[in-house]
Amino acid sequence: MKKLINNPDDVVTDALRGIAAAHGGALEVAIDPHYITRADAPVQGKVALVSGGGSGHEPMHGGFVGMGMLDAACPGEVFTSPTPDQMLEATKAVDGGAGVLHIVKNYTGDILNFEMAADLAREEDIEVEAVVIDDDVAVQDSLYTAGRRGVGTTVLAEKICGAAAEERRSLKEVADLCRRVNDGGKSMGMALTSCVVPSAGEPTFELGDDEMEIGIGIHGEPGRERVALEPAAQVVERLAAPILEDLSLSGGDSVLAFVNGMGGTPLIELYIVYSELVKLLGGRDIAIERNLIGPYITSLEMAGCSITLLKLDDELTSLWDAPVNTPGLRWGA
Amino acid sequence: MKKLINNPDDVVTDALRGIAAAHGGALEVAIDPHYITRADAPVQGKVALVSGGGSGHEPMHGGFVGMGMLDAACPGEVFTSPTPDQMLEATKAVDGGAGVLHIVKNYTGDILNFEMAADLAREEDIEVEAVVIDDDVAVQDSLYTAGRRGVGTTVLAEKICGAAAEERRSLKEVADLCRRVNDGGKSMGMALTSCVVPSAGEPTFELGDDEMEIGIGIHGEPGRERVALEPAAQVVERLAAPILEDLSLSGGDSVLAFVNGMGGTPLIELYIVYSELVKLLGGRDIAIERNLIGPYITSLEMAGCSITLLKLDDELTSLWDAPVNTPGLRWGA
Repeated sequence: MKKLINNPDDVVTDALRGIAAAHGGALEVAIDPHYITRADAPVQGKVALVSGGGSGHEPMHGGFVGMGMLDAACPGEVFTSPTPDQMLEATKAVDGGAGVLHIVKNYTGDILNFEMAADLAREEDIEVEAVVIDDDVAVQDSLYTAGRRGVGTTVLAEKICGAAAEERRSLKEVADLCRRVNDGGKSMGMALTSCVVPSAGEPTFELGDDEMEIGIGIHGEPGRERVALEPAAQVVERLAAPILEDLSLSGGDSVLAFVNGMGGTPLIELYIVYSELVKLLGGRDIAIERNLIGPYITSLEMAGCSITLLKLDDELTSLWDAPVNTPGLRWGA
Repeated sequence: MKKLINNPDDVVTDALRGIAAAHGGALEVAIDPHYITRADAPVQGKVALVSGGGSGHEPMHGGFVGMGMLDAACPGEVFTSPTPDQMLEATKAVDGGAGVLHIVKNYTGDILNFEMAADLAREEDIEVEAVVIDDDVAVQDSLYTAGRRGVGTTVLAEKICGAAAEERRSLKEVADLCRRVNDGGKSMGMALTSCVVPSAGEPTFELGDDEMEIGIGIHGEPGRERVALEPAAQVVERLAAPILEDLSLSGGDSVLAFVNGMGGTPLIELYIVYSELVKLLGGRDIAIERNLIGPYITSLEMAGCSITLLKLDDELTSLWDAPVNTPGLRWGA
């Protein structure tokens, strides 16, 4: 195992100490239990957004805490759900009186623990709604999931709902918006290599030198098929075609196109993937109105990429464009 | 070779098409010869900054073109110097009448070609100054370099000098500032794995499963020593101690600390490295006033990191904080 770590058991705590030191003015990092909040939380009168999940997907979610996106993130151990007490403490820390939205990726452990945390928070008179993101079109049911897995659309939902919360929309409105983003955003990923969970010390799965896995999950869950290496153009076709079909996208539609790196794939390759996606969508008269290209929801050092397409309308575009100021995503008005 | 590419010979052109499609409003991408400029270039009365070098280090340099940083970047083939005609065309495209600064990393091909381009531009009555970045303290002379290699300080110089140019400082002032950043910024890198240049199809160098290379260059040039794997704390000591010595940093000094990912190392590990760097500098009473953490000057999919420390004063800090709007680095006022 070749990693820049100290003790494998301390990976998450050590990284959180680094995040705390790096972003001290903007974020607060609690170590026991682990959670990250905006330094100015709670923001009175604003719906608070809380997300979380296993670590190893950075910058998601901790890197998306800040103005215009999340109020708190709960990092579990690597590829392991955070616990209800993390979620409860984070929820209490950021509630500004307007309620709290839990954005939950569809993994069984995350679902159960966020449900328990929501119940506990409600007992303390905090209004909580939860929206489950299940945007991965690759497979129905998976290693850790009943139904579809939650992947790239999570990043887009956190950004768009964060902007809506800044506008002081109500909890119901922000939750409905989050469901709408989940309905309109679909993803599929692929891997060229496996990855090593530090506490395991061994690759999560094995992949031959001439093979890739199409439809991979962000924890290395099996995809649709294992095929021989192909040029980027064919890889993009394999990922984008099922998304287009699922979303029933057709000529004249507008999308946000998100090309995500899995952690070990350099940016130069992601731009090649994006170039092929532009060709493919252009050939179907689908307009890419916005884009996001880079490693935003990763799987440790896995090489590979995912594509997410979100069908846009004026409201979603305007919320996407709204200012955001987090370590992982930042732009002005 | 496992890469998300089409034909290995088309990697740079394909990626540039992706960059053009993704950042069409902000950047212009010329394909023959290859160069990237700000869409609003030339900016009249402003010193223009041009950099360039081999591709495979993204987001550097093309991702740093925009307001507050570079006016143009010239990408060569992967790990290969751009040609004088690229540099000349880019220089002509961005000259706004106040002269052009070439920021050149110390590799023999880059130096020769930028010198030739500067001569040709001067024949066309464009005032050109060049500053060579040679900040890598690992080794004296290297595979492609006489003297020290140019690495991480390049990113900091492009940001700081870009801010100075936006203030309409003169060419001489911006060039002097760039030399001052180079004098005050030093770096050292390490690799856990090698990388594969697409046209070669084989790893640039070989590293054993239990080995790392300390003092690696960004093209895989040999470093100081090859040693057994160690915890992050020891790796940071190996990288930071020579920098501290070279810069003669002592208690009470302030620095910008830049922890850079080589391309294949995930963000969670970079934060662990940063956490160790905070401990090490804290123990010597050196204050980290600013930081930058992420993959900004990469070596394809190489796993590893580099540390750059830049000694700060009020002027450099203020220029670092100035607004910047590029695909790779972006923040507001």
